[in-house]
Amino acid sequence: MSLQLVSLALGVYLLLIELNKVVITMSARPQPILSQTAQLDPISTRPFPNSKKVYLTGSRPDIRVPMREITLSDTVLENGVHELNPPVMVYDSSGLYTDPNVTIDVRQGLPNMRTAWIEERGDTEILPTVTSHYGQSRQADINLKVLRFTAQSPPRRAKVGHNVTQMHYARCGIITPEMEFIAIRENQRLQEVCDSQLLAQHPGESFGAAIPKVITPEFVRDEVARGRAIIPANINHPELEPVIIGRNFLVKINANIGNSATTSSIEEEVEKMVWAIRWGGDTVMDLSTGKNIHETREWIIRNSPVPIGTVPIYQALEKIEGKAEELTWELFRDTLIEQAEQGVDYFTIHAGMRLAHIPLTAKRLTGIVSRGGSIMAKWCLAHHQESFLYSHFEEICEIMKAYDVSFSLGDGLRPGAIADANDEAQFAELETLGELTKIAWKHEVQTMIEGPGHVPMPLIRENMDKQLKECQEAPFYTLGPLITDISPGYDHISSSIGAAMIGWYGCAMLCYVTPKEHLGLPNKHDVREGIIAYKIAAHAADLAKGFPGAQFRDNAISKARFDFRWEDQFNLGLDPIRAQEFHDETLPKQSAKQAHFCSMCGPHFCAMKITQDVRDYAQQKGIGDINAAIETGLKEKAELFKNQGGRI
Amino acid sequence: MSLQLVSLALGVYLLLIELNKVVITMSARPQPILSQTAQLDPISTRPFPNSKKVYLTGSRPDIRVPMREITLSDTVLENGVHELNPPVMVYDSSGLYTDPNVTIDVRQGLPNMRTAWIEERGDTEILPTVTSHYGQSRQADINLKVLRFTAQSPPRRAKVGHNVTQMHYARCGIITPEMEFIAIRENQRLQEVCDSQLLAQHPGESFGAAIPKVITPEFVRDEVARGRAIIPANINHPELEPVIIGRNFLVKINANIGNSATTSSIEEEVEKMVWAIRWGGDTVMDLSTGKNIHETREWIIRNSPVPIGTVPIYQALEKIEGKAEELTWELFRDTLIEQAEQGVDYFTIHAGMRLAHIPLTAKRLTGIVSRGGSIMAKWCLAHHQESFLYSHFEEICEIMKAYDVSFSLGDGLRPGAIADANDEAQFAELETLGELTKIAWKHEVQTMIEGPGHVPMPLIRENMDKQLKECQEAPFYTLGPLITDISPGYDHISSSIGAAMIGWYGCAMLCYVTPKEHLGLPNKHDVREGIIAYKIAAHAADLAKGFPGAQFRDNAISKARFDFRWEDQFNLGLDPIRAQEFHDETLPKQSAKQAHFCSMCGPHFCAMKITQDVRDYAQQKGIGDINAAIETGLKEKAELFKNQGGRI
Repeated sequence: MSLQLVSLALGVYLLLIELNKVVITMSARPQPILSQTAQLDPISTRPFPNSKKVYLTGSRPDIRVPMREITLSDTVLENGVHELNPPVMVYDSSGLYTDPNVTIDVRQGLPNMRTAWIEERGDTEILPTVTSHYGQSRQADINLKVLRFTAQSPPRRAKVGHNVTQMHYARCGIITPEMEFIAIRENQRLQEVCDSQLLAQHPGESFGAAIPKVITPEFVRDEVARGRAIIPANINHPELEPVIIGRNFLVKINANIGNSATTSSIEEEVEKMVWAIRWGGDTVMDLSTGKNIHETREWIIRNSPVPIGTVPIYQALEKIEGKAEELTWELFRDTLIEQAEQGVDYFTIHAGMRLAHIPLTAKRLTGIVSRGGSIMAKWCLAHHQESFLYSHFEEICEIMKAYDVSFSLGDGLRPGAIADANDEAQFAELETLGELTKIAWKHEVQTMIEGPGHVPMPLIRENMDKQLKECQEAPFYTLGPLITDISPGYDHISSSIGAAMIGWYGCAMLCYVTPKEHLGLPNKHDVREGIIAYKIAAHAADLAKGFPGAQFRDNAISKARFDFRWEDQFNLGLDPIRAQEFHDETLPKQSAKQAHFCSMCGPHFCAMKITQDVRDYAQQKGIGDINAAIETGLKEKAELFKNQGGRI
Repeated sequence: MSLQLVSLALGVYLLLIELNKVVITMSARPQPILSQTAQLDPISTRPFPNSKKVYLTGSRPDIRVPMREITLSDTVLENGVHELNPPVMVYDSSGLYTDPNVTIDVRQGLPNMRTAWIEERGDTEILPTVTSHYGQSRQADINLKVLRFTAQSPPRRAKVGHNVTQMHYARCGIITPEMEFIAIRENQRLQEVCDSQLLAQHPGESFGAAIPKVITPEFVRDEVARGRAIIPANINHPELEPVIIGRNFLVKINANIGNSATTSSIEEEVEKMVWAIRWGGDTVMDLSTGKNIHETREWIIRNSPVPIGTVPIYQALEKIEGKAEELTWELFRDTLIEQAEQGVDYFTIHAGMRLAHIPLTAKRLTGIVSRGGSIMAKWCLAHHQESFLYSHFEEICEIMKAYDVSFSLGDGLRPGAIADANDEAQFAELETLGELTKIAWKHEVQTMIEGPGHVPMPLIRENMDKQLKECQEAPFYTLGPLITDISPGYDHISSSIGAAMIGWYGCAMLCYVTPKEHLGLPNKHDVREGIIAYKIAAHAADLAKGFPGAQFRDNAISKARFDFRWEDQFNLGLDPIRAQEFHDETLPKQSAKQAHFCSMCGPHFCAMKITQDVRDYAQQKGIGDINAAIETGLKEKAELFKNQGGRI
C-alpha cells in the first residue's frame, strides 16, 4: 500500500512540475527603486495634529524610547476658568518618519541605534562578506546594481560558541539595553491612574494574565528567560526599536506586506512598510513572492524600525521556480542564512506539520490553506518523507541563535473554514509545535507559535488554552481568527472580533487581515483599514487584561467627547485623520469644532449637551459641586420615595 | 435641602429655556416628496447576482414567506463530471423591492398582506379618523397636503375590552398567521445538514440558549407566551412581513435612520429605510427629530416590510419646541396614540429611569448619553418629580395593547464610556426595567429591554446575565456594545465585537452602529458598512449558539472558495457587490472568475490550488477517492513512524 502511495505521490509531483511551468511570473528586468522621502505618503511622515514625537531616556543616553505625545486643549468651565488636560503619551510604532527633526533618506536607511549595544556584548563578529551562496550570487550580479541598497554593511554573526539571543542573555541574568528600552516603552507612564481604572476595580472575567503594575527591566528579562515573551531583534537589524511580544505585555499586531506575482512592485513594498507602521503595525511581515525579493527585503529592513518577519520557504520556492518537490534542506538552509544576514527578526517555519498529519486533512472542507503548509505537504507527499523542517530542526536552531532570529512556528494546518476548526489535523500540529518549543528553548532560541485562522466564537478559547498548555506559554500569534466565513470584503471585521477575544484570552500578537482577504492583494487603503481594526482588537484586549494605564486613553477621549473638545477627540483616536474627515463631512466649519453638538443628533437632542448644561448651570450659579449637591439631596428624596412606598 | 434642589432645578429649567431658543431648526416649508421607484437606489431594487426571490407557502395561501435563493454553479471535477451544488436559501429582509415581478409605487405603499389576518380575529375596529389631537391637527392642515402620504387608510384599534397583542393570542394558545409565518422564516430549510455542523458536534462554550432543531409554529407561540420572544406587529402596519426577536431565534439587527436638525430630508429617510433592509436590517428605527416627522413616518411605515420602531419622546419634545420641562403626560400620551395609529411596531420608552437614579450619574465620566434619558432627566430635575413614564406606566400598557405596539424599554442610563460601564446607575435602571417587564406582561404587552452602550469585554457577560435574571429572559436589545472608546471613525468595528459576543451570550437584537458614530449623521455608505458589520456579529452569534442550519452558508461559501467558484463565493457573502468589486480591482477580466488563484497569493502560492491539484490528480488517474487512499495509506505509515520512535 505504501509503495502505491509513493508512486501516487510521485505522479502528483510530476503533474505539478507541469502545472508550475505555466505560472505567470513578473518581469525580472531591474527597475529603479525609490530613492527619496518625497515618495513616501505625507501622512506617514507628518506627526498627527497636535501630536509630537518625544523620547524617554533610559539609564544611558543611547536608550531613547520614542513616544507620541498628544497635546490636549483645556476644558473651559462655565465660569471661564480653564481646567488643564495633561497631554497623553501613547506607544509609537511609526519610527523616525514622524519626527520632523530627522531627515529621512531611504537610500541611507535609518540610524543604527543598536550597533553599540550589540558590539559592547563582544560576542559577535563582522563577517567579511555575506556567507549564503544565494546572497553571494546576488551581490556578484552586476545587473542588480540598480536595484541594490547601496549603504549596505557586511553582516554580523555570533562568534563561534556564542549564543546571542535575548533569551540567552535573559537566562544569564543580563538586562540588555533592548530589555530596558522595552520596559520604558511598555509602561504607559500612567501608573498614577491605574487605581482609578474601572477594570482594576472590577476586572470581570479574566484568563490568567499576570501583568505587574509597573513593567520593570527585570520583569522583561524574567519573561524572556521564561519563554513567555520574545524580543525579535536580529543582530543584523540595528535600526530596530525593540518590541516585546508576550501575554503579559501590550498586545501587538502584525501587518503583512508583500507583492504576489500578479501585482505590486518593489517600491510599493517599502512605502507599504512605512504606511503600516504609521497606523500602528508593531511588526511587519514581508511576504513577497516575486522576483528581486532579496533586494526588496534589504530596502525594507534598512528602513524599518519594527521587527521584520518572513516565511523563508517562499523565497526558497522561488529559487527553484515553484517546484516544491525540488526543495532541499541545503537550499532552505542557505535561504535562512541569507535572510538572517540581512537582518530578518523572525522566521515563520512550518516545522510542526509532519508527514503523518497530512492524511488528517483529507476530510477537510478546505484542506490546507497555509501557503507554507501546502508547499511542505507537497514536498512530503512527493518524497514520502518526513518534512525536512522537522527533521533538521536542531540545525535550524543553530542558525537562529547565531543571529538571534526568533521562531514563529507556523501553523501549516490551520483551519481555512469554520467547519475545519479545532480538528485533529490542527491540534496534532499544535502538539508537535509544543515539542519543538522545548527544543528551541533548549537552544535558547526565542519562540512564538502561530495560530488560526477560521474559528467560530465558542471554539476560540480552546485554541488559546491548548496553545498555552502544549507550548508552555510561549507567545501565541494568531491570524484573526475569523468567526464566520461569509464576509468576503469585510473579513477585517469578522477576524478582528475573533482577534479581540483571543487577545483577551492571552494571545500575544494578532496578525491583521484586510478587507481584501480571500479576494485580492490589499492596497494602501485596505492596509489602513486592516490595521485600525486590529488596533481596536489589541487595545480592547489590553483593557480586558487590565493592562496598567491602558484605560487612560479611553478616559481621556471620553472626557474630550463630553467636553465637546472635538479636535482632542479626533486626535486621541486611533485614526485622527479619518475622525476629522467624518466629522467635517457634515459640519466642515472651524466653528463646529467648538460646537456643543454634532450632526448626528443636532444641537437640540445631544444628550451630552443636556447633561453639560445642567452641570454648567451649577458652575455659573457658583455652586461648587452640583454633583455632590444633587447626589446628597436626591438620595434623601429617593429614600423618602421608597419609604412612602413610591413604587407603582 | 430638597427645597434648595427644587429651586436649583427650576433655575436649570429657566436657563435651558434660554438655551433652547438658539437651536438651529430646519425649514418647515413643505417640499415635494419622492413619488417614484426611480428614486430608489438600483442596488435596493435588483436581486443580487444569481439570487432570486422565492416564497414558501404556509398552511394557507396568504402565508407567503419570502426567501432569497442563491443559485450556485457546479463543481467541475477533474474528469469533467459536474457535481451539482444545490441552491442556498437565506433569510431575506429586503421586502418586495427585490422581487422583479412586483411593481413598486411608493405613493401606494406596499400591499397589506396582514389585513385579512387581523380582520379575521374580529377583535379590532376601524376608527372613523385618527384619534390623537396631533394627528387630527396635521390632517386638518391644508399646507401639508403636498407632503402627505395619499393612499392613507383610517386607523384600526382593539375593540373595547380586547387585547390584540401577539402575546395575548399566544397565551390563549392561538397560533396566529404571524407566528406560522415566522416559523417558516426562521427555519433555514436545512435541517438535513444540522447533524453535520461542527458546532452541533462540538459546541464549545455555551450560554443556555435552547433552540430546537426545527422551529415550529408551536415553539414560536410558546416563546411569545413566555415573554422570551416578541413579534413587533402593530395592527396598523399590515404591510409587515413578521419578524421575531428572542434569544432562541436568529439574532436580529436594527438599523437607525432619521434626520437630525442639521442635515437630511424626508425623501432621504424613505430611501434609507429601503437601503437598510436591502443590506439586512431586520428592523428599522426612525429617529427623526426634525419638522414633518409625522408625515415622514407615514411614508416610511407604508413602504416598510420590516417592523418600525420609534422613540416617541423625541417627537413629543419637538411639539413643545425642545423645552423638556414642558413635557406632560397628556402630550406624551397623545404622541403614543398618534404613532400607534400610524403603525409603529415598537416604542422605546425610557420608563426605567427614575428620579432617584439621576444622582447616581453624578460621578460619571460622560453622564447621561441617551437622548431620551437626558430629556427625562431634565424633566425630572425641573419638576423634581418622578418620571411620568414610570408613574403612568400602566396607562401606557393600555395603549400598547390596543394596537399591539411592543415595548422596547429604553436604557436612559446606559454607559457612554467604558469607565461608566456596569455602574450603579446603569444597573439600578435595569432592575427597574425588570419590574416594568412584569407589569407589561401582566397586560400581555410584548416587551424587550434595551442595553448598552460602551462596555469593555470582561464586563459584557455580566450585562447579559443580569438582564436575563432581572427581566425574566425578556429579549435584550443592545447598542453594540463598544469595547473601547478610542475608535472614532471605526466604531462600527469596536461595537460589532461587543455585539457578536453579547449575541452569543444571549442578546436577541443588536442595534447597529455606523462608522460615523460620535462624529456625524451617517450617509448611505455608512449605513451599509454598519449593517454588514452587524450582520457579521449576528451571524457569528447564530453559529455560536448552534442555530440549526446557520453553518450551511459558511460551508457553502468555503466549498466555493476551495473550488475557485469565484462568483459563488461573492454571491454567498453578505455583500456580493463589494466582494466582486474587491476581486475585480486587481483581476477584472471575466476569465479570472474561473482562475484557480487570486491576486493575493498569485497562481504559484495559492494553498488551496495546491491542495486541489493533489486531489484533481487523483481524479484524473481514476483513483476514486484519493482522500481515503491517502488517509489509509499514510495512517499506516504514520503508525510505523511512531512505532519506530520517529520523533526527533
